[in-house]
Amino acid sequence: MMRKRIAIDMDEVIADVTPKFLDLYEDRYGKRLKREEYWGKKIYQINGAVELRETLQDKGFFADLPVIPESQEGIRELMEHYDVFITTAAMEFRSSFEDKYDWLKVHFPFIHWKNIVFCGDKSILRAEYMIDDHAKNLRTFQGKGLLYTATHNIHETEFTRVNNWAEVMAFFRKELAV
Amino acid sequence: MMRKRIAIDMDEVIADVTPKFLDLYEDRYGKRLKREEYWGKKIYQINGAVELRETLQDKGFFADLPVIPESQEGIRELMEHYDVFITTAAMEFRSSFEDKYDWLKVHFPFIHWKNIVFCGDKSILRAEYMIDDHAKNLRTFQGKGLLYTATHNIHETEFTRVNNWAEVMAFFRKELAV
Repeated sequence: MMRKRIAIDMDEVIADVTPKFLDLYEDRYGKRLKREEYWGKKIYQINGAVELRETLQDKGFFADLPVIPESQEGIRELMEHYDVFITTAAMEFRSSFEDKYDWLKVHFPFIHWKNIVFCGDKSILRAEYMIDDHAKNLRTFQGKGLLYTATHNIHETEFTRVNNWAEVMAFFRKELAV
Repeated sequence: MMRKRIAIDMDEVIADVTPKFLDLYEDRYGKRLKREEYWGKKIYQINGAVELRETLQDKGFFADLPVIPESQEGIRELMEHYDVFITTAAMEFRSSFEDKYDWLKVHFPFIHWKNIVFCGDKSILRAEYMIDDHAKNLRTFQGKGLLYTATHNIHETEFTRVNNWAEVMAFFRKELAV
């Protein structure tokens, strides 16, 4: 029997972008944002900080992001039961390809290159599950979508929400128990 | 109504890899292969020329490939009726990402980055049609697969075959007429 597939996003699901944006904001505006100041939005939507988003185009931006806690152990466990694909909307950022590829090699060496996808519009993906922080990606998905909590999506109510990897694993352990 | 999607491979479908392998073979072995010598196999399967395949890892390999005739006009016409995605198994070759991206920008500037996919195992793709030179990719595909003729696949009989872009367009004009 073919194993079910899980499509897992990178940024804000296994790679933490927030600390870098907080650093960039602080460098530019001389102020460390507190959680209540950025919670509910993208950091580059604050005070016209939209030019901060341009740094996503810089070589190296995605190279040194921290790993989201427990995502490595979680994915390794999921791979015992599912075909796991890392599916990231890298195409907007030409300079991100090698950084993201290398980052996966370092932090997720157990993920085969066959299971990595750089895409744009995620409606092209076929899987049974998708874990993503963008509701728009879950909306065009035909399987079961899990919305991974990120500061910009806290008001979304349309999808099953997972706040951290412990909750991701609880969801799939329940699925497997059925 | 959502438009149907066509997933179109790059190498040997819109980008011609064969001339470069013929050059490499000639450089190495001092002999220009004739069509009857390589037809029916991959060039790097001839006379132990397997090390030629290593050149796929070189920066620049994919940068200057010729465009397959009529693929540009064909894709532009298909885009009037379908959502076209370029889906290439780039993941095996880290050094190919930027080359392939730039090549598409130059030769297919009308294809949005949202419609480009770098992947490995193509079973992750969801589309109504796939045009690919590898039968293995069509075998795991749930839509209608078209096998684009390449020297290594001439003995395949499992899929609808298209020998050139004129035949691709004839197929889709018939689909649209139904």
